Amino acid sequence: MRPDTLGVIGLGAIGGSVAWQAGVAGVPRVLGFSPFPAEGAAAVRAGAVTDLAPSVRHVFERSDLVVLAAPPVQNLALLSAAARFLRPEAMCTDVTAVKVPVIAVAGALGLETRFAGSHPLVAVAQTGFGAAEPARFRGALVYVTPVGSQDAPAREVADFWAAVLEAQPVIADAEVHDAVVAWTSQLPQAVGCAMAHACASDGPRGVTFGSTARAATQPALAPVAAVRDTLLLNRAAVLEVLDRVEVALGGLQGALRDGDPVRLQAWLEAGSAWRRRIEP
Amino acid sequence: MRPDTLGVIGLGAIGGSVAWQAGVAGVPRVLGFSPFPAEGAAAVRAGAVTDLAPSVRHVFERSDLVVLAAPPVQNLALLSAAARFLRPEAMCTDVTAVKVPVIAVAGALGLETRFAGSHPLVAVAQTGFGAAEPARFRGALVYVTPVGSQDAPAREVADFWAAVLEAQPVIADAEVHDAVVAWTSQLPQAVGCAMAHACASDGPRGVTFGSTARAATQPALAPVAAVRDTLLLNRAAVLEVLDRVEVALGGLQGALRDGDPVRLQAWLEAGSAWRRRIEP
Repeated sequence: MRPDTLGVIGLGAIGGSVAWQAGVAGVPRVLGFSPFPAEGAAAVRAGAVTDLAPSVRHVFERSDLVVLAAPPVQNLALLSAAARFLRPEAMCTDVTAVKVPVIAVAGALGLETRFAGSHPLVAVAQTGFGAAEPARFRGALVYVTPVGSQDAPAREVADFWAAVLEAQPVIADAEVHDAVVAWTSQLPQAVGCAMAHACASDGPRGVTFGSTARAATQPALAPVAAVRDTLLLNRAAVLEVLDRVEVALGGLQGALRDGDPVRLQAWLEAGSAWRRRIEP
Repeated sequence: MRPDTLGVIGLGAIGGSVAWQAGVAGVPRVLGFSPFPAEGAAAVRAGAVTDLAPSVRHVFERSDLVVLAAPPVQNLALLSAAARFLRPEAMCTDVTAVKVPVIAVAGALGLETRFAGSHPLVAVAQTGFGAAEPARFRGALVYVTPVGSQDAPAREVADFWAAVLEAQPVIADAEVHDAVVAWTSQLPQAVGCAMAHACASDGPRGVTFGSTARAATQPALAPVAAVRDTLLLNRAAVLEVLDRVEVALGGLQGALRDGDPVRLQAWLEAGSAWRRRIEP
């Protein structure tokens, strides 16, 4: 779908980019809402929105498509407002990185014919509108997850990502999505933070951590509240993946304890072969 | 020291760079040895060595300073040849990333007045002379470790790194060095490989691993034999660090199992605060 009026709730790095890129792509009216006056003002100055809304209700009541781009837990809360105020013929989606809870709440609120979840895979190092970009989603992979068996809203939302934002949407089941992102994004996030935590608790002081260590612990620089919420929202899948990482680490520890070069080499080669397959 | 004749055994990414940069810096004779004829020929063609030696004995018998730049375990074996063939007034060092075993062997072989270990901290993604660079060590941190209380050879070797190769040498105790690198380089190496191993064993197939996951598992692309040997040579310190990482992961798993946002936030913030202190 190409909305005449696009509503965006939350004008941070993701929401601000959705609004901005949609305007650049010719959406005539982009109605933004931010709880932070300075962020809304910055979005207006940049031309990322055509109008600022005084409330989320105002956005829901005037938009053909509403994108929920608040932090994860707030997006879940905004679904209640969507159920009350979204126009009957309008559509809604969100950009939360975990989809099962979003889809469950949307279904429970009776939004199944007007909602599909989204998860754009874009790396965002900073928060706030200052990190928004007007071509953020060009070529980006975006997962779109239907509520139950409702394919029509998912197709509309996927078409918005493709036709307006030049992204590459893939329609996927929410449970499959969450199991996959537990591996592809939450695993490196959680383990990078665990390395940083171990260094903070027990690491040497006053020494140089080189580029390898800084890269490995880079995930610990991500906004803590967002990381906390996405880990908690997907905790069953994340715990399952962390169990598998513990098994892998146990294999390494066993080979090292036994001083077994053959076993250690085989252990290293399994990971190396996998990593070469996902080059670069 | 500024050697008239520098010997370099092993002409890969590190040894080739030592030879090349020393020649550029005005060392009159750079005598290289490689067990691989093609690698030796490439070093000659690039002008990285002035002469190729037919044997390691030839290098030891003719050099004022010999740099052992073979893989870790071969460097240990080369110390025996150093003890037999190094001239009485000459010096020797190595570039192995783990120093306690090197220093122990050098001491046992009676090399204490003619040997100090080196560990240049340079990130090398590729192996072989093709990855050598003629300005590799400019500004690089280089740890130099004495044998026992023999400071004079360590000062000579440190002076070579500073005066000839424009590096920044730091004289350090081998045990302290190995405990530090277990944290600063072997921790991210081992854990990056463990994530790759887990993905290889249990991860989803046919899905996109984005830039975060590729960066996190980048260590699994390092040469397996070198990683195997440096992990084994420093296994006591590495096992100690991995125990601390297990404790950190346990803290995360506990907070997730209990669904405790306050505990999870505190856990994340400890690592985040540490990581911000070692910016960028």
